[in-house]
Amino acid sequence: MNRPLAIAVAGLGTVGAGVVNVLRANADIIAARAGRPITVTAVSARDRSRDRGVPVAGLRWYEDAVALAADPQVEVVVECIGGSDGKAKALVEAAIAAGKHVVTANKALLAVHGAALAQQAEAKGVALAFEASVAGGIPAIKAVREGLAANRIQRIAGILNGTCNYILTTMRNERREFAEVLSEAQKLGYAEADPSFDIDGIDAAHKLAILAALAFGRPVDFGAVHVEGIREVSALDISLAEELGYRIKLLGIAKREEGGISTRVHPCMVPVSAPIARVDGVFNAVVAEGDFVGRVMMEGRGAGAGPTASAVVADLIDIARARFTPVWGAATSALKPEPSLPMDRHTGAYYLRLMVVDRPGVIADVTGVLRDNAISLESMLQRGRSPGEAVPVVLTTHETSEASVRAALARIAALDAVVEKPALIRIEAL
Amino acid sequence: MNRPLAIAVAGLGTVGAGVVNVLRANADIIAARAGRPITVTAVSARDRSRDRGVPVAGLRWYEDAVALAADPQVEVVVECIGGSDGKAKALVEAAIAAGKHVVTANKALLAVHGAALAQQAEAKGVALAFEASVAGGIPAIKAVREGLAANRIQRIAGILNGTCNYILTTMRNERREFAEVLSEAQKLGYAEADPSFDIDGIDAAHKLAILAALAFGRPVDFGAVHVEGIREVSALDISLAEELGYRIKLLGIAKREEGGISTRVHPCMVPVSAPIARVDGVFNAVVAEGDFVGRVMMEGRGAGAGPTASAVVADLIDIARARFTPVWGAATSALKPEPSLPMDRHTGAYYLRLMVVDRPGVIADVTGVLRDNAISLESMLQRGRSPGEAVPVVLTTHETSEASVRAALARIAALDAVVEKPALIRIEAL
Repeated sequence: MNRPLAIAVAGLGTVGAGVVNVLRANADIIAARAGRPITVTAVSARDRSRDRGVPVAGLRWYEDAVALAADPQVEVVVECIGGSDGKAKALVEAAIAAGKHVVTANKALLAVHGAALAQQAEAKGVALAFEASVAGGIPAIKAVREGLAANRIQRIAGILNGTCNYILTTMRNERREFAEVLSEAQKLGYAEADPSFDIDGIDAAHKLAILAALAFGRPVDFGAVHVEGIREVSALDISLAEELGYRIKLLGIAKREEGGISTRVHPCMVPVSAPIARVDGVFNAVVAEGDFVGRVMMEGRGAGAGPTASAVVADLIDIARARFTPVWGAATSALKPEPSLPMDRHTGAYYLRLMVVDRPGVIADVTGVLRDNAISLESMLQRGRSPGEAVPVVLTTHETSEASVRAALARIAALDAVVEKPALIRIEAL
Repeated sequence: MNRPLAIAVAGLGTVGAGVVNVLRANADIIAARAGRPITVTAVSARDRSRDRGVPVAGLRWYEDAVALAADPQVEVVVECIGGSDGKAKALVEAAIAAGKHVVTANKALLAVHGAALAQQAEAKGVALAFEASVAGGIPAIKAVREGLAANRIQRIAGILNGTCNYILTTMRNERREFAEVLSEAQKLGYAEADPSFDIDGIDAAHKLAILAALAFGRPVDFGAVHVEGIREVSALDISLAEELGYRIKLLGIAKREEGGISTRVHPCMVPVSAPIARVDGVFNAVVAEGDFVGRVMMEGRGAGAGPTASAVVADLIDIARARFTPVWGAATSALKPEPSLPMDRHTGAYYLRLMVVDRPGVIADVTGVLRDNAISLESMLQRGRSPGEAVPVVLTTHETSEASVRAALARIAALDAVVEKPALIRIEAL
């Protein structure tokens, strides 16, 4: 057996403690697959006295995570602190500068600073690995960056946030509203006390930015991602979607289009028959479409100690075996800065749901606005009749442009008979 | 840009021509991801004059594939001949002996001779890569061998033969019988003129043997796989399955059990709600269950020039980047020869369908035999009534042993009132 690979773990929260656990529980098979033992030699966490369910006796302990970068015995730093800046960034930069390999689960860091970090890692000839940053235990990064590397990818999409998928699934199964399900998810530990990062789509957007950079071989561009969360999805829209043969999912979608790459995260209606429509609960999924391979879909657990640690340790095994892949799949000089397309340029089919006062002439007014904006209807559904009261009216459109729909909706929302903000959900064929 | 990687392609059928095509069509992105161009310098095929839709001018041409191994300019031999022995084996052995890396799509070769070939490759320090041998374009080998390498795998299973899945899907959708659908599939080119390899489960068994070796870290053991094909699946059983909430799929399943590893390929009833139940047509799927990652499923096209070539070229990119993984995921000395369990030892739930003459006492006789063999019924369904005629009777059992079911079925088949060979399909929760 060869010399062990000496690693340091920064942050002993769910992910960090999970990594230590996996390395211990499966030490035998990990050593066989890595060609040598992988040994934790140093750790860093704020409070040494706290019991984290992992043995830390005999390990060098650092109060300051950044100091791990200076430990001469450490070959790989595993960053499990989180956040796009602060300690996490300082540690990763210091570790790279010190010539150490870095493994991280930090999607925010990669999405926001991944271009610069890749150049630093490349200059130093060290690995910067982040399999755990996207879709938890699913080896999605490896699949896209290595497994599908022969393909020109046309589209990559996915259910990238387990919290949102859990909430949407529960809303559908139990016919309950968003706020209620969110508050229950928080009690169950499926959603954070401050849930904004997840439910407003930011976490999914970080992951999509990473997938898009890998799939299209261009510098990561988080700022260009159009982001909408799931706060405005209602139980009514979920049940109307079912009637129309759709499920509502929060998807991240990156697509090669005329003139550039579009990247967007928002609630989507996907046909019930699409494989991704059935990915429920906390499960994540990634779908990639390549010019030779066709459509490949992967699904699995997107979060949690076990799946995330599984991905971190896979990266460590790659490093132990000296399997080296450039951060973004190709040398930074070989990346092509293809432009990102603004959301205004999006075209597709739309679901629009209005609450209108049930009286003569309203539908004529609404459809007149759509006609004026050259939007062609695919179907219209008025649910129930109660003269003088507000009733839902559902419209689905043929392919049209985001700009047209936005313009039409502004006028429709201003109609006297329209009593609530109209709901807009994009329809996606996947 | 670094020096090109010089490869030779042996066999210019669907796969070989596909590889040449992908390398040409996506030369730019492949070079970026591989860090250098990948260049075909020599080919071998029987008939030089045949047009294969790929340019062969300027390439060194060998009549005898084995001669490629001696070409001093070739660094990697891509074996696309097929078959577990003969030319394919001779070429792979000669190439390894000559110190060349080998990439192959040949599942039969790996399943039958993979243990010995791994030792040869290890001794010579060359890669023997075979991503294309299992599940076509799905990066299943890479996922299991690298992506999930931190996990102890408990079970790995899949829809591993697209021809069978296409036939079963069409039988279900069109309510037609096996023989008719097979003959149509042959006309459409979805099934071979001699279909036995596919429909008798041998191809799936080759793939399962490979997956089991990788998942469990043991020498490949094709001989131990229990194999049944789909010839005996009837339209009646498919429609009865639907009534019971199941789909019939040909699955390969390898599982860690008390005392060893079970490996089997046979038609299965899977709950309609299981993700794998919805993988239809020519699509393949692989499901792996690891102790930390949980369940991961991948689906995609399992055959065809594009998907297969995509996988071959991914292997070539790994070699160009010097990403080296031992053939079976660990050094051959680190593999553990865990015993394979015989099918007799299998336990599970069963679907049994009899054709019985509709007369008093028959059900009592049948259920008496089951009781005598300690088999507990989960449900019984008698379809239609027509006194004196043969009617189907469906029984589903609770968990029981294969040996008990076989013993009971032998006695049931011998009953006067039972007029056809009973159908037996195992029920699997996946």
